[in-house]
Amino acid sequence: MARTVKVAVTGAAGQIGYAILPRLASGEVFGRDVRISLHLLEITPALKALEGVVMELDDCAFPLLDYIVITDQAEEAFDGINWGLLIGSKPRGPGMERGDLIRENGPIFVGQGQALARAAADVRVLVVGNPANTNGLIAMSHGHKAGIPRDRFHAMTRLDQNRAQAQLAQKAGVQVSAVTNMAIWGNHSATQYPDAENARIEGRPAPDVIGHHAWLREEFIQIVQQRGAAVIDARGLSSAASAANAALDHIVSVESATPEGDFFSAGVYADGSYGIDEGLMFSFPIRSDGQGGWEIVQGLELSDFARAKIKATEDELKEERTVIADLLG
Amino acid sequence: MARTVKVAVTGAAGQIGYAILPRLASGEVFGRDVRISLHLLEITPALKALEGVVMELDDCAFPLLDYIVITDQAEEAFDGINWGLLIGSKPRGPGMERGDLIRENGPIFVGQGQALARAAADVRVLVVGNPANTNGLIAMSHGHKAGIPRDRFHAMTRLDQNRAQAQLAQKAGVQVSAVTNMAIWGNHSATQYPDAENARIEGRPAPDVIGHHAWLREEFIQIVQQRGAAVIDARGLSSAASAANAALDHIVSVESATPEGDFFSAGVYADGSYGIDEGLMFSFPIRSDGQGGWEIVQGLELSDFARAKIKATEDELKEERTVIADLLG
Repeated sequence: MARTVKVAVTGAAGQIGYAILPRLASGEVFGRDVRISLHLLEITPALKALEGVVMELDDCAFPLLDYIVITDQAEEAFDGINWGLLIGSKPRGPGMERGDLIRENGPIFVGQGQALARAAADVRVLVVGNPANTNGLIAMSHGHKAGIPRDRFHAMTRLDQNRAQAQLAQKAGVQVSAVTNMAIWGNHSATQYPDAENARIEGRPAPDVIGHHAWLREEFIQIVQQRGAAVIDARGLSSAASAANAALDHIVSVESATPEGDFFSAGVYADGSYGIDEGLMFSFPIRSDGQGGWEIVQGLELSDFARAKIKATEDELKEERTVIADLLG
Repeated sequence: MARTVKVAVTGAAGQIGYAILPRLASGEVFGRDVRISLHLLEITPALKALEGVVMELDDCAFPLLDYIVITDQAEEAFDGINWGLLIGSKPRGPGMERGDLIRENGPIFVGQGQALARAAADVRVLVVGNPANTNGLIAMSHGHKAGIPRDRFHAMTRLDQNRAQAQLAQKAGVQVSAVTNMAIWGNHSATQYPDAENARIEGRPAPDVIGHHAWLREEFIQIVQQRGAAVIDARGLSSAASAANAALDHIVSVESATPEGDFFSAGVYADGSYGIDEGLMFSFPIRSDGQGGWEIVQGLELSDFARAKIKATEDELKEERTVIADLLG
């Protein structure tokens, strides 16, 4: 019972927050011998609802839950944290273009990036709030100035990875755990490239198992790219439980050694790998050593088809970066 | 990987359903070596939203999740199940009295009790949908006629137990895990009696630790009885995450041996223990042997104060039973 982990969650009274908090507090992620403290950040008008969420967390009687802080100040929320889950962002309103959304959200992540100076020395940050890659780039830029290494900042593409694995498993008629090596390249947006060509099903190349190459290059990619909209159509609400679950999967993947021969996907600082423009927050296949270190998987083969897809999502991210260039400081 | 558990969830597209399904599918309840199948029941108009929930469960890529059935037919939902979580019920509408609510919900649980004839021989049923005790009584009555032993049916008072433990822990300034022996007597309603007199904090009687006996007999009881309304006031929505969590806690408590000297609370068939009218679905302190058997804890001391409180909640349950007497068949 020695270790305690402090986790900040922003947008904690939102739908993803509501789905993730009990699963963080239950101990399923960090282990049954690790106590957890939750630092919950919300905008001022949402603090009352957040109090209700805290009442429910109290009412769960979680044995591992140490204490809960609620605040509308990022500096307080990030004080001493080991993990920062930056989930809160402004949603896209009616008539708003993607560029408007990026401009609306950018300043939030400037302030949060700066406030991360208060975090623990081992802090890791996962940006979930959309546009996740560009918000993550902004937070990383300011967090880095505050002394946090760039490799601590990730933007979530794990939901895309999980969605892609589920689609391949269903198509192949296998359990989802049989699908490995699922790379998501680029932006967590409709331009992302879910890479079936490098995926494996029961250890074999996915294209060999599925056979249907046209499906892999067309429908499969579209289904994964458009999955969020399809969930909204069916549920009437955006993905929350699955987004929360993906964030938990990301934490587990970062905190444990990646199984031999496999990888997972996350948006990370582009270091020139695969010729991607340096300094973007770009989703790559990565491997963790389970000791805090990770690396981009090198040497994956990319077809001309894949390169064109990756170029398109890279172009989108470059454009997003232009829109918020002044916010990178 | 030999064992698979089949769990039915009714009202699966509702808020509690949405909160419980990922936690069932993740493996945290039944264990990391048990596969799980989900049988999801909804009313016909909610099937489309339920499809959205299933999409999100697919998108979680849970390695232990075997298959999901969705249906609006209880017979199909309950086919071969090991656990039935009867969460769905009609909410109280504007101007509706509690008696109206009971009459509205009763028929649902007649049909579901009958349909449980299709369940596995080891089936266990937890009724969460309100009024949980009386709904549970109806389901038990019909399930029993279909050959299921009465002791397989429980009505959930675990949320009340957890709430009571959290309140005592906060008052005593201890971690919630230090509070044990938390009995909830009677109805999952505002007449319930959360029994601080028999509760223990770090092994000592709670009244000795807290000292403040008037608080225990007044505010504490009211806080627990009215907690659901207080959460609605704060969140603007009723308790879902904490209700889901309590149902999971109940499953774990039933499936594992209760720690020596402790007990947990659930509504069960009253067998005459403590002089409670036989045949009510009444919450008692119970202990599980972890092998499928459980017993009501006998011999707890009850003060005159406690007896009066227990009488009040018993009277309410008798009245509820009168309202649906014709539905017991």
